[in-house]
Amino acid sequence: MQSISGPAHAEHRAQEADHPTSQVATFDTDQPLPLDCGVDLAPFQIAYQTYGELNSAKSNAILICHALTGDQHVANPHPVTGKPGWWVTLVGPGKPLDTSRYFIICSNVIGGCMGSTGPASTNPTTGTVWGLDFPVITIPDMVRAQAMLIDRLGIDTLFSVVGGSMGGMQVLQWCVAYPKRVFSALPIACSTRHSAQNIAFHELGRQAVMADPDWREGRYVEQGTHPRRGLGVARMAAHITYLSDAALHRKFGRRMQDRELPTFSFDADFQVESYLRHQGSSFVERFDANSYLYLTRAMDYFDIAADHDGVLAAAFRGTRTRFCVVSFTSDWLFPTSESRATVHALNAGGARVSFAEIETDRGHDAFLLDVPEFFDIAHAFLESAGKTRGLADAGQ
Amino acid sequence: MQSISGPAHAEHRAQEADHPTSQVATFDTDQPLPLDCGVDLAPFQIAYQTYGELNSAKSNAILICHALTGDQHVANPHPVTGKPGWWVTLVGPGKPLDTSRYFIICSNVIGGCMGSTGPASTNPTTGTVWGLDFPVITIPDMVRAQAMLIDRLGIDTLFSVVGGSMGGMQVLQWCVAYPKRVFSALPIACSTRHSAQNIAFHELGRQAVMADPDWREGRYVEQGTHPRRGLGVARMAAHITYLSDAALHRKFGRRMQDRELPTFSFDADFQVESYLRHQGSSFVERFDANSYLYLTRAMDYFDIAADHDGVLAAAFRGTRTRFCVVSFTSDWLFPTSESRATVHALNAGGARVSFAEIETDRGHDAFLLDVPEFFDIAHAFLESAGKTRGLADAGQ
Repeated sequence: MQSISGPAHAEHRAQEADHPTSQVATFDTDQPLPLDCGVDLAPFQIAYQTYGELNSAKSNAILICHALTGDQHVANPHPVTGKPGWWVTLVGPGKPLDTSRYFIICSNVIGGCMGSTGPASTNPTTGTVWGLDFPVITIPDMVRAQAMLIDRLGIDTLFSVVGGSMGGMQVLQWCVAYPKRVFSALPIACSTRHSAQNIAFHELGRQAVMADPDWREGRYVEQGTHPRRGLGVARMAAHITYLSDAALHRKFGRRMQDRELPTFSFDADFQVESYLRHQGSSFVERFDANSYLYLTRAMDYFDIAADHDGVLAAAFRGTRTRFCVVSFTSDWLFPTSESRATVHALNAGGARVSFAEIETDRGHDAFLLDVPEFFDIAHAFLESAGKTRGLADAGQ
Repeated sequence: MQSISGPAHAEHRAQEADHPTSQVATFDTDQPLPLDCGVDLAPFQIAYQTYGELNSAKSNAILICHALTGDQHVANPHPVTGKPGWWVTLVGPGKPLDTSRYFIICSNVIGGCMGSTGPASTNPTTGTVWGLDFPVITIPDMVRAQAMLIDRLGIDTLFSVVGGSMGGMQVLQWCVAYPKRVFSALPIACSTRHSAQNIAFHELGRQAVMADPDWREGRYVEQGTHPRRGLGVARMAAHITYLSDAALHRKFGRRMQDRELPTFSFDADFQVESYLRHQGSSFVERFDANSYLYLTRAMDYFDIAADHDGVLAAAFRGTRTRFCVVSFTSDWLFPTSESRATVHALNAGGARVSFAEIETDRGHDAFLLDVPEFFDIAHAFLESAGKTRGLADAGQ
């Protein structure tokens, strides 16, 4: 646990009933977060979880960046759903991200809805919920906020930054924005810029949310509604993109739900239908609709090369970070070709980079699932980087 | 033009202002359409277009089957949108489906909304719009209705049945249900059963429609509403699946709409966003929301093998129809692997079959676009089949 000085910056257990376990770092008006849109966000706060202990050299910290609908609850039960942490397969004692060796941090992104400042927070100017008055944020903004948290924790250089999907975008952005503060980086199932097809799927999701009259132009909190149906449809659409055709076929095929013959109705005859409906309805219990708009938008805007005159390699030139780029063969949301482009740019920038394309039929979701080959690679990469970092005997 | 006897069966120009150009065949209570769900649909009507002239031997008729959101307006301006017919590139004098040689028929499917009986028609029992009381229909039901129309037109054997996507499913169903009535068949970009992923995308679209409060449990016609937003979202989702990632990248990439810098808002910054929004909003002007539910459901239920104890080849055993199966390399909705499975079953069933996988980056939509290699193949296949059929000099 880090000690934080000053009452305005007090690190404390969140009091909110719905985020009982997270620590919260608050930043007052004297420490604004400068956003890409030109707004200085202040005050703001970041909710985060830590696992393991920071060593005396402060050289064993790993930052995990979460994906679009993830949060900071990596390896503890989720305070809303009660389900296990989303990366409990990878993070824990003796696991690849070994909490007996590393000090692991994960913070809810700016714009999120699990305790960090976002559109569901209170706008200090008006005293009401931000809603769509919240400034549009970007992946670089998320990373800038994380860097302020890492400062607050007294950590100069992160041993590693790790994440998949939107989390992987943050990993890459960390390496571009703060190259000297990242000893090693593990970007998984991601890209350096969002593709047209991915923007299209996100726009579909946003339109589904905004089409719901209960969205109330983003003012649903004050008006006591929630665009459950719209957000549910958005989640269904996204969920299809997280799975592969093969995974859906293996998991459900054309199997019927509790029946042998079709009902000739619009009931969920097929198992895949009831699965999707469940994905939609359970998601809306734990996620804020406006956050969904903001975070998808941040991913759409992401384009590292655009900030470097269109030359991706220039963004990484001279980096001393060690990279391990991971993709999955059946991921069609962030296909291997995207990871390969990242690797080429890293090579052209002179980076130390290894690349693993992992054979699986489980689609984009593979990064969240029990994929032993992926775990082995993550373990070996961190083990090797740890030796160079002088962490060799940390957990022996 | 065919002469049809009996006033109840009178073929006539539709009087409805919104379908001014279609002919309509009506079937009275003495000629019900037996549906797979067990209901006998009667009375019912089929709206259709014809192009070219039926020869005296009645051996030159080609039935075109339209796709999910297509209709009978293959090669004439659309009565609602004023746009050219959807297959005007393929159908016309001197074109592969040569209207100076062939008599070409296309009918609006049962369950559709362009003049054939569907959920927006009047339920004769109640005198009000069917809505969700309309019986759930299947691809075999659509084909059964078409066969009744073909009977009405006095045609025994179709020279060819041609169609893409849902139209291709109908082509295959024709060959299974009426093998002796189909001399040649050209199923394009389709499959013999809808995949789990495709069912998932359809369910997403249906949920988007039904989530719209203006859908009114399907009673929007009486209540003077239309689920425009929900149907628009459904269309956006479907439209993404019709294009390939490469096509979207080539067409739009990450290009901005009339601007160079992001607006940091939820406006349609990217061209792909405004394109999708336009696709959604224009679609709702011409399509009935309940029809969309029924037709997607029909596709989901489609599974030829299921009706043959799971053995697809059994469905085609002994067929004398000549087949040409066409797929497109970048079609991920009906990938080549699906067409290949159809071809294998046809081979196993002893059918005469040729197979063409056409190289294009235009995705599923390629079957509607100007793809010369596809046109050449369609032309050569019909030319060859026509010679066998004795049509060799029909247009010489």
